[in-house]
Amino acid sequence: MKLTHFLTSLSLECASQIAHATLAHARQAGMLPLAVAVLDVRGTLKAYLAEDGTSLYRQEIAQGKALGALGMGFGGQELERRAGLMPLFMNAVQALSGGNLVPVQGGVLVRDAQGELLGAVGVSGELSSKDEQAAVAGITSVGLVADCGAPKP
Amino acid sequence: MKLTHFLTSLSLECASQIAHATLAHARQAGMLPLAVAVLDVRGTLKAYLAEDGTSLYRQEIAQGKALGALGMGFGGQELERRAGLMPLFMNAVQALSGGNLVPVQGGVLVRDAQGELLGAVGVSGELSSKDEQAAVAGITSVGLVADCGAPKP
Amino acid sequence: MKLTHFLTSLSLECASQIAHATLAHARQAGMLPLAVAVLDVRGTLKAYLAEDGTSLYRQEIAQGKALGALGMGFGGQELERRAGLMPLFMNAVQALSGGNLVPVQGGVLVRDAQGELLGAVGVSGELSSKDEQAAVAGITSVGLVADCGAPKP
Amino acid sequence: MKLTHFLTSLSLECASQIAHATLAHARQAGMLPLAVAVLDVRGTLKAYLAEDGTSLYRQEIAQGKALGALGMGFGGQELERRAGLMPLFMNAVQALSGGNLVPVQGGVLVRDAQGELLGAVGVSGELSSKDEQAAVAGITSVGLVADCGAPKP
Repeated sequence: MKLTHFLTSLSLECASQIAHATLAHARQAGMLPLAVAVLDVRGTLKAYLAEDGTSLYRQEIAQGKALGALGMGFGGQELERRAGLMPLFMNAVQALSGGNLVPVQGGVLVRDAQGELLGAVGVSGELSSKDEQAAVAGITSVGLVADCGAPKP
Repeated sequence: MKLTHFLTSLSLECASQIAHATLAHARQAGMLPLAVAVLDVRGTLKAYLAEDGTSLYRQEIAQGKALGALGMGFGGQELERRAGLMPLFMNAVQALSGGNLVPVQGGVLVRDAQGELLGAVGVSGELSSKDEQAAVAGITSVGLVADCGAPKP
Repeated sequence: MKLTHFLTSLSLECASQIAHATLAHARQAGMLPLAVAVLDVRGTLKAYLAEDGTSLYRQEIAQGKALGALGMGFGGQELERRAGLMPLFMNAVQALSGGNLVPVQGGVLVRDAQGELLGAVGVSGELSSKDEQAAVAGITSVGLVADCGAPKP
Repeated sequence: MKLTHFLTSLSLECASQIAHATLAHARQAGMLPLAVAVLDVRGTLKAYLAEDGTSLYRQEIAQGKALGALGMGFGGQELERRAGLMPLFMNAVQALSGGNLVPVQGGVLVRDAQGELLGAVGVSGELSSKDEQAAVAGITSVGLVADCGAPKP
């Protein structure tokens, strides 16, 4: 009998670097003040940063984007497509998860080069397409792969 | 005065067999990793199994599909039809039940040959049509009747 | 930079075997009807079984014992000691976690021979000392180590 | 008519430095893996870091210690004293705040040299006296004042 299986998860050092690089990108690109949440493969928070000037709900939204992506196994773009097709299913999962399913861009799965799931990043504060762009910049800064849920080619 | 009435409910042995058979079907059919929840007639969990590789919200969704079917008295197909006709009613019941109404395929009532309600099965992890197919395979493996809420002929 | 770290988690096959062995022990020992929840290292449910005759809250209690042990990093015996010393701290964490901290025997961490954390088992239905005894029987049936939070020798 | 008043709050740069310095102290002192949450004066999260190996509830507890200190206006030592005198009041506020009142050491208010409130730090993972010690090290690393709620001399 196979008793166990292995999971690979983001280290603190990696998560912290992703968070700082996400905000560095946002500053360089002249974005509005952002918040960024980095979750490990268990869905627990590893690193979080919020810039000065963010509004009050940024933690809930950033963490909810990341946790919803991990909860469903898809990046925000795919969640948004599915929400368009099945709005009442999304409503149900939002209620089941205390709101932790935010079906827009800016929730991004983190994978290694082999496609193994390592964690997720959520960003909030700008247009959701810019939130996603900042998250991708953070993830690629450490050489990992950002899975935004884009349509398969 | 009639003091009592009878309930008929799935036994543990039956529920466990349904859960194992649901996953056996999924493996044979090459489905994505699934979770399966089997509830007794009271709505309490009798058996649950989650394959390796499921995302974080699979318990909530599988159990929510089964409980929602029992809660409303219809399988997922009928819940989905009614959700299309009465979306605000479905929203209200989702809020009342903490999200435990998931109006898509994959929540299936379990009945005996006489149509008596015995419990419900919920499956999550694949396309909802495949979730339902796996639940039906589990229920029929013990000789019981799967009520998916299909349109009456 | 160390990007990732590894987690080891219970397989479905292992979790299912633990659940069945827990109940087999309970039947042999003449215990009251039990429920058993087996969680992986992420805190998500892998396997659950409830015997015929359990009362309505057994899932919540069994899963809450296991999740509370994983949440705090201690087996139920140590949680019970700490609850005696710091009852208001326990109250706070119960509220923070939706009640998923049950500081009595019957929440048991699962470790391998090297002490690595793999998941947790929660049992409910009997006196808590018997709940724990059944969980330990389940865990040792697969050759893994049960950490009940007993005082260090 | 006085239309406005001023708030002074921790900047992101300051909050991030406090979080990193808290964990640096913990590593040097050989503590168990910690999580640290830094809140601004509004009670919103500015910076959070969790070391590898923390158990699942560390965010909730660390953030709950910091938010509870801000919510009541006292550091954890004073919250603990008051909890001893008024346990039912503490229970009520825990229920009102979803558990975000954790009346033990490790929730520390951040003040400037004039005593002005700027935010709060919460630490979880070790004995609460060590949690507090790490939070104080983080706060003093930026030249600010740690208010642990110690008895007035």
